[in-house]
Amino acid sequence: MTDHLVLFMPSGKRGRFPKDTPILEAARQLGVHVESVCGGRGICGRCQVEVQEGVFAKHGITSSSDHISEFGGNEVRYSQKRDLKPGRRLSCSAKILGDLVVDIPQDTVVNAQVVRKDADARVIERNPAIQMCYVEVEEPDMHKPLGDLDRILQAIEADWGFKDLAIDAYLLGQVQGILREGDWKVTAAIHEPFEGRPATLVALYPGLKNEAYGIACDIGSTTIAMHLSSLLSGRTLASSGTSNPQIRFGEDLMSRVSYVMMNPEGREGMTKAVRGAINELIDKVCKQGEIDRADILDAVFVGNPIMHHLFLGIDPTELGGAPFALAVSGAVNIRSSEIDIPLNPGARTYMLPCIAGHVGADAAAATLTEGPHRQDEMMLLVDVGTNAEIVLGNAARTVAASSPTGPAFEGAEISCGQRAAPGAIERIRIDPQTLEPRYRVIGIEPWSDEPGFEKAAEKVGVTGVCGSGIIEIIAEMYLAGIITEDGVINGDLAARSDRIIGNGRTFSYLLRDGKQRLTVSQTDVRAIQLAKAALYAGVKLLMDKQGVDHVDRIGLAGAFGSFIDPEYALVLGLVPDCDLDKVKAVGNAAGTGARMALLNRAYRREIEKTVTRIEKIETALESKFQEHFVNAMAFPNKIDAFPKLTEVVKLPERTNKSDTADGTEPSAGRRRGGRRRG
Amino acid sequence: MTDHLVLFMPSGKRGRFPKDTPILEAARQLGVHVESVCGGRGICGRCQVEVQEGVFAKHGITSSSDHISEFGGNEVRYSQKRDLKPGRRLSCSAKILGDLVVDIPQDTVVNAQVVRKDADARVIERNPAIQMCYVEVEEPDMHKPLGDLDRILQAIEADWGFKDLAIDAYLLGQVQGILREGDWKVTAAIHEPFEGRPATLVALYPGLKNEAYGIACDIGSTTIAMHLSSLLSGRTLASSGTSNPQIRFGEDLMSRVSYVMMNPEGREGMTKAVRGAINELIDKVCKQGEIDRADILDAVFVGNPIMHHLFLGIDPTELGGAPFALAVSGAVNIRSSEIDIPLNPGARTYMLPCIAGHVGADAAAATLTEGPHRQDEMMLLVDVGTNAEIVLGNAARTVAASSPTGPAFEGAEISCGQRAAPGAIERIRIDPQTLEPRYRVIGIEPWSDEPGFEKAAEKVGVTGVCGSGIIEIIAEMYLAGIITEDGVINGDLAARSDRIIGNGRTFSYLLRDGKQRLTVSQTDVRAIQLAKAALYAGVKLLMDKQGVDHVDRIGLAGAFGSFIDPEYALVLGLVPDCDLDKVKAVGNAAGTGARMALLNRAYRREIEKTVTRIEKIETALESKFQEHFVNAMAFPNKIDAFPKLTEVVKLPERTNKSDTADGTEPSAGRRRGGRRRG
Repeated sequence: MTDHLVLFMPSGKRGRFPKDTPILEAARQLGVHVESVCGGRGICGRCQVEVQEGVFAKHGITSSSDHISEFGGNEVRYSQKRDLKPGRRLSCSAKILGDLVVDIPQDTVVNAQVVRKDADARVIERNPAIQMCYVEVEEPDMHKPLGDLDRILQAIEADWGFKDLAIDAYLLGQVQGILREGDWKVTAAIHEPFEGRPATLVALYPGLKNEAYGIACDIGSTTIAMHLSSLLSGRTLASSGTSNPQIRFGEDLMSRVSYVMMNPEGREGMTKAVRGAINELIDKVCKQGEIDRADILDAVFVGNPIMHHLFLGIDPTELGGAPFALAVSGAVNIRSSEIDIPLNPGARTYMLPCIAGHVGADAAAATLTEGPHRQDEMMLLVDVGTNAEIVLGNAARTVAASSPTGPAFEGAEISCGQRAAPGAIERIRIDPQTLEPRYRVIGIEPWSDEPGFEKAAEKVGVTGVCGSGIIEIIAEMYLAGIITEDGVINGDLAARSDRIIGNGRTFSYLLRDGKQRLTVSQTDVRAIQLAKAALYAGVKLLMDKQGVDHVDRIGLAGAFGSFIDPEYALVLGLVPDCDLDKVKAVGNAAGTGARMALLNRAYRREIEKTVTRIEKIETALESKFQEHFVNAMAFPNKIDAFPKLTEVVKLPERTNKSDTADGTEPSAGRRRGGRRRG
Repeated sequence: MTDHLVLFMPSGKRGRFPKDTPILEAARQLGVHVESVCGGRGICGRCQVEVQEGVFAKHGITSSSDHISEFGGNEVRYSQKRDLKPGRRLSCSAKILGDLVVDIPQDTVVNAQVVRKDADARVIERNPAIQMCYVEVEEPDMHKPLGDLDRILQAIEADWGFKDLAIDAYLLGQVQGILREGDWKVTAAIHEPFEGRPATLVALYPGLKNEAYGIACDIGSTTIAMHLSSLLSGRTLASSGTSNPQIRFGEDLMSRVSYVMMNPEGREGMTKAVRGAINELIDKVCKQGEIDRADILDAVFVGNPIMHHLFLGIDPTELGGAPFALAVSGAVNIRSSEIDIPLNPGARTYMLPCIAGHVGADAAAATLTEGPHRQDEMMLLVDVGTNAEIVLGNAARTVAASSPTGPAFEGAEISCGQRAAPGAIERIRIDPQTLEPRYRVIGIEPWSDEPGFEKAAEKVGVTGVCGSGIIEIIAEMYLAGIITEDGVINGDLAARSDRIIGNGRTFSYLLRDGKQRLTVSQTDVRAIQLAKAALYAGVKLLMDKQGVDHVDRIGLAGAFGSFIDPEYALVLGLVPDCDLDKVKAVGNAAGTGARMALLNRAYRREIEKTVTRIEKIETALESKFQEHFVNAMAFPNKIDAFPKLTEVVKLPERTNKSDTADGTEPSAGRRRGGRRRG
């Protein structure tokens, strides 16, 4: 046996190959995706690899190695024309002569930030749904009067193996000109050239087209976030976010459904609004990334069921009441032009599947990102909005539900609540001895007890408390003993501090006096109790289904999850007890999932399959839900359980820059920190 | 072995089946297409068959038969609601109890007139590219939150076996309403649910939709002909024709190509013109057939390469010169909406493949109809226009070419030539003794030597000679000895008849004197000689390729083929010698082929495969073509060879009614007849 062992990193796939097999060919045989636009002609440079064994001299010229062919003709030519980093080889040209470890370099796999690096971090291999295929086409020949398009298809089949391609009609009138402009060389963009799936020729370029782009977009009820990525390198070129303009039809989802029901043209107006905002966002990321909109060939969208439906032009009314029937739950594959998202005329759009009537494509995308179905640990994934979307599971079994938390967590229904905007209190600490608060306000750098705060506050104003601030206030009030385990504001403390204010039979806590008086009333506490009880009851129901009494890992998704401190979530009993180290904000996990599906079509198949396997629990139909709900009204956890809360907390900053506006995960360094007591 | 033998007619397919197998199921297993929209629920009535064995009482109620189940529940119910002819059974309900011969009735196979009944006539089984599938869909269920569309797809897979269907995006917003309007029962239109081919859900109707229509259209340079057919019964509901409005851009093909080359917007204008005319024609057939345009789900188009390209929005300039490169030669599958032919929003369009740069989808369709590739006899198929499209072959091998005949056969380039219109001479006989002509004129009932002719001629005028008339005049002049074998008008005859007129060195034949003097000049004879030599040389070249010196069967296609008398074609040597009984006008064989492809998708596969197997001969590249051409200038055949020409010919009438305007084949009774000499 003279075959040589070749190990591909980071996938770890390995196999034995005869001497002189090109590395690209070996990768293909193992199903390791190495990009190649030119099909092994040594001109696109997309198939670069690093070979760990063998000694390489400067500028990639092999000095001595008997395990790999010498730095040869195509490689020399390519390195003379374009930059080829030292140590890099073109895998289409470099041949196996002995055992090798082949590294597919980082810039050809998904960006590290796309998938969190933790214990279970996996490097994402890129394998987009669009394959760019350069071909050299036979010139027309009177003896073989095959059409231009037919000869292109023949060349694609010969060089790339893709058969029976369908054609986008718009290409029929263009094929002649493109072929002649490219002097009988063209690059074809093929959509989903999967085995057994219908593949389509969606775009055609003269000559070598060595780039293709895609967008991944999370359509939130409040915010729309978008990333522009190179489909060929995986690199993110631009990220941006914008408010969902549907807000003018209603802040929360149900009011938008009501709007549709009350207004005959309501659905169309909302569809137009969200598509318009997305089109503007596309213009923005294209400008940022300095690319032409027509070079975008693929788009992936996620969103909750109502956003999903409105974006696709589907009436969401059915989602407003039982049985919460989705018009379509499976993944959607359509042309971008069909939903008025003009990109390349052949661009495709993919929407991830929805899990249930209240558990949308955003939850599916978050599931794809965090992968409870890929791990042995029992993971809880929670995305809190007007409804909480909850997924609980592991590799053996995954269950999902939504809980009607209402808008309290978003600051609605709270007397001092407001949206996260300058002037909103977002962080608070209460001294358990004096009951005095210190807080931080969006748009003001110092804490309220630090120099310069009041001067800034005069300018910015202190106008209310945002969603994550509410959680902290209630938790701090509880930790300071202001609220009892039953959620009653303890009026006895009025004797000790004039921050406890009686109003008839109940009491309030005075957060800030002055021009704008901010208090937390008993009603506010009750609203949060109801919301957190609903969330917890939903989680508990899923735990019952799984037959577990604790979870191994918790991911808090979405903007809410990014800004609340996991410790406070545990204090309030929003989520079940869990090792604090294993409770993490997972940022815009939905957006990340969209990006994964954009960059690797295998993830599309994975989530499609996973969603069909997820067991859907409808809380409204479960008799135990009410019982769990009642039981979850109390505050369960004592401060003693949270030693870290005695340390100084350095807080993440909320800015309006695109890196947070678009919902990406705040860096770990900014998220965590100690706690400083006043 | 207790299985029973079942023979299906007219296909002759047979197999053995266990007792109690429904006949529909047996047909499916044998690949015999029996329509069924309701999927065996006994409500659509599409699956009717006649069972030859067994005794049936009046109105289809079985009295006694031990080979088939009794006329049962569904059948009784259906026959009470709708008409079920005596003897008819619903094959979904009738079960096999013994050996049977099952006849699929004529009204569920293709109309007899669609395919000629001759020696090789085959009954065409219908199997359209659109399958109507009635399904009953589960109601939404909170425990299984599968979307409306997903449950429809699930039902289609369960009842009909079609998996992984793609969806037309426009349906996403409609699926909810349709499902609820139909009370969870819908009929889905599936396009091309072939094994291994991508199938698509293209339309959706509430409840049982027991009808679907299609159009078949032949886009000729001069005339556009269209048929509207039921896809479920094969019945033709309407036929109509119209002039190709591109005529205003140039009468013949090459002048239209020139127009495109000279005018920047030329291509768009021509595309718009032809699509506009087709849309008007669709309105017309829909009105005739009393159907809604939106119920048309499939459309098949054929045309010569230039019409094919212009219709699809492709610049035909490349077809104007060597190497005559087609932009696309293979079959085209697109959405009708993509080429501005609005039918049902999900309607599909199919164009047959082109054979070569001058041998178009019309020739492919004619090949499909006449089927040289299906027979052992060597068949020549000729369609004469500005170019003659020539196909020669049999089951073993088929070759094709086009010959540059020029427009002489169409009456252009001939001094007295004109288009076939009132006032044009279309038939002529010349007395070999007196050299006196008698002729018949379009729009005038009597012959020129019959009472009433001159009176009518005063009104209608006798203005020229149409294409088929030219052929007869030249042939008659030759048969009368006015023209020598070399094509010279014999001036010696001037002594015998003053119809022979000298003009310097050459002579003319005076056809008609008076207000409008019509003569045939030596130049006219030369033009026809050149045209017929080109045609014959092309045919001879193909005969060389086949290695044969005669052909077994000749089909003359198109309007020209319908009106020239095959005998004259042989006299002039337009086509090689052949048994006169086997030379036939095959009418609008291209239109018939389009209809075959509309009604049975298997014909699409057949012609796609056949076209790739046809060997294309480019006459311009063949050195022997010139030699054949020169040799073919002479007139080869003597009158002795055509005994029938001494009989009285009863001529087909040319009318402007739709049955001839649309190019259908004149009935055999009208075509043939004796010959009357004056």
